[in-house]
Amino acid sequence: MPHKMIIGVIGAGRATARGEAWAHEVGRLIAGRGAVLVCGGLGGVMAAACRGCVEAGGETMGILPGPEAAAANPWVTLPVVTNMGHARNVIIAHTARALVAVEGEYGTLSEIAISLKLGRPVAALGGWSDIPGIAAVGSPQEAVDLVFDRLSF
Amino acid sequence: MPHKMIIGVIGAGRATARGEAWAHEVGRLIAGRGAVLVCGGLGGVMAAACRGCVEAGGETMGILPGPEAAAANPWVTLPVVTNMGHARNVIIAHTARALVAVEGEYGTLSEIAISLKLGRPVAALGGWSDIPGIAAVGSPQEAVDLVFDRLSF
Amino acid sequence: MPHKMIIGVIGAGRATARGEAWAHEVGRLIAGRGAVLVCGGLGGVMAAACRGCVEAGGETMGILPGPEAAAANPWVTLPVVTNMGHARNVIIAHTARALVAVEGEYGTLSEIAISLKLGRPVAALGGWSDIPGIAAVGSPQEAVDLVFDRLSF
Amino acid sequence: MPHKMIIGVIGAGRATARGEAWAHEVGRLIAGRGAVLVCGGLGGVMAAACRGCVEAGGETMGILPGPEAAAANPWVTLPVVTNMGHARNVIIAHTARALVAVEGEYGTLSEIAISLKLGRPVAALGGWSDIPGIAAVGSPQEAVDLVFDRLSF
Repeated sequence: MPHKMIIGVIGAGRATARGEAWAHEVGRLIAGRGAVLVCGGLGGVMAAACRGCVEAGGETMGILPGPEAAAANPWVTLPVVTNMGHARNVIIAHTARALVAVEGEYGTLSEIAISLKLGRPVAALGGWSDIPGIAAVGSPQEAVDLVFDRLSF
Repeated sequence: MPHKMIIGVIGAGRATARGEAWAHEVGRLIAGRGAVLVCGGLGGVMAAACRGCVEAGGETMGILPGPEAAAANPWVTLPVVTNMGHARNVIIAHTARALVAVEGEYGTLSEIAISLKLGRPVAALGGWSDIPGIAAVGSPQEAVDLVFDRLSF
Repeated sequence: MPHKMIIGVIGAGRATARGEAWAHEVGRLIAGRGAVLVCGGLGGVMAAACRGCVEAGGETMGILPGPEAAAANPWVTLPVVTNMGHARNVIIAHTARALVAVEGEYGTLSEIAISLKLGRPVAALGGWSDIPGIAAVGSPQEAVDLVFDRLSF
Repeated sequence: MPHKMIIGVIGAGRATARGEAWAHEVGRLIAGRGAVLVCGGLGGVMAAACRGCVEAGGETMGILPGPEAAAANPWVTLPVVTNMGHARNVIIAHTARALVAVEGEYGTLSEIAISLKLGRPVAALGGWSDIPGIAAVGSPQEAVDLVFDRLSF
């Protein structure tokens, strides 16, 4: 089975300094587990997570909403160009085996909702951590440990 | 301008008796305003709303997740067949000028999230009425009045 | 069964005078059959077909590629807003029970291909009439007669 | 710029022995160029191309039409799960910088059409090589040389 393990990081294009630091560390830890990171490919949380993953030697897929690969942040190694706007959020939920949400706005909420609908484990650092079914966590390490633990069952 | 006013009703395929009664009345009121109802085209809240709308002489568009028009509930007059699964939720949010959410599960939450992201007015009867930005209402009449009031600005 | 019969008209945003006249007449004939017209909602062949259909008292669904209903041509009565770019072509093929292609460029070819893949009857006036499986016809009347004849089996 | 070069291979789930041999060699040559292969992730031409690419040390993205990564052929290293049916063809066209079509049926034709619409170079081995704008070629080497030559302008 050559399919690589793919883990999602979701969050908004605007993030607090704490959110970006969390995302960067989540990305680093995903690479450390040997998994591929999937995200929406743009800025903020997405860029910070990709940067952390790439700096640790990992691979990053950016599922982009627009028509151009050039819109991907510089740490996306594999730009997937959908030109489908917010519908690309649904593809992220399907493609990730589990997800870590970092802060986030309405777009992130839509990804959380579809991910939970699909039965994916979702850990939340800040943001929408009150949504029923999500696992609120306190640190990137806890987030990544939690999603990998749930996947191993 | 011949474009008809299109109002969304969102909710799950499973609903309580109260939820179905609410949805039926919301559908009736949408038809009474001369608007077209758009929904996900399946059962539960969607079927009840379509039935109310059609019984009052209205038109109903069902944006279906699967590949077959035959999956639409019997009160969908215009089946739109997407074969795009949950991504069809995003089309409902884009197509409706305003939306009424009746109860609902994770699929409905994804529609609420995208609708709010797009700046659409969203009224909620039960369910996800705590989501920031949504307008919690107490009756179908209040829901329909609210979304039409917000559209007239 | 309240589902209305939905027939597609596909063609480019740019058309010859002959193409627009054909499309206008196809739209008129679809309305005359009591069916709803579905198309891509923009200009050229799409606008001419919608105008013919609306002038004859029919209903027109425009499955739009962008994020705004306002982009629909003035004869679309029911704008469906996908924000999915060319992927909306696939929705047109799924939604139409049969299709008439009028001239057309690569976008139209993609719609023809998916429609034939789905087993839909497709009549062609000009354009891609050499594609295997398409029914080349010589007039709007012949096109509409052909697709309705094939549907009645 | 860390974005990897992504080249598409398109073709049907059923292929002739010659088509599979072509696809296998095209996959091998794409890996040899250091590019990532993107395809529809299923059998026939898609599986043969992925196998060739992986055997030569390359990476393969499969943009899947259904809801499960498990449907990917065994040589897909990166399954992208869309659950969007034929609409995933449009994502392949957007994601690939250039494409090689090997034989193919209507689904492949839809991918060719969108790729040409987007201005992508498309080389064809058999199949739809008569479509205006496509570059008919006689061998996998010629196909891969042609698409890389066109990209270097």
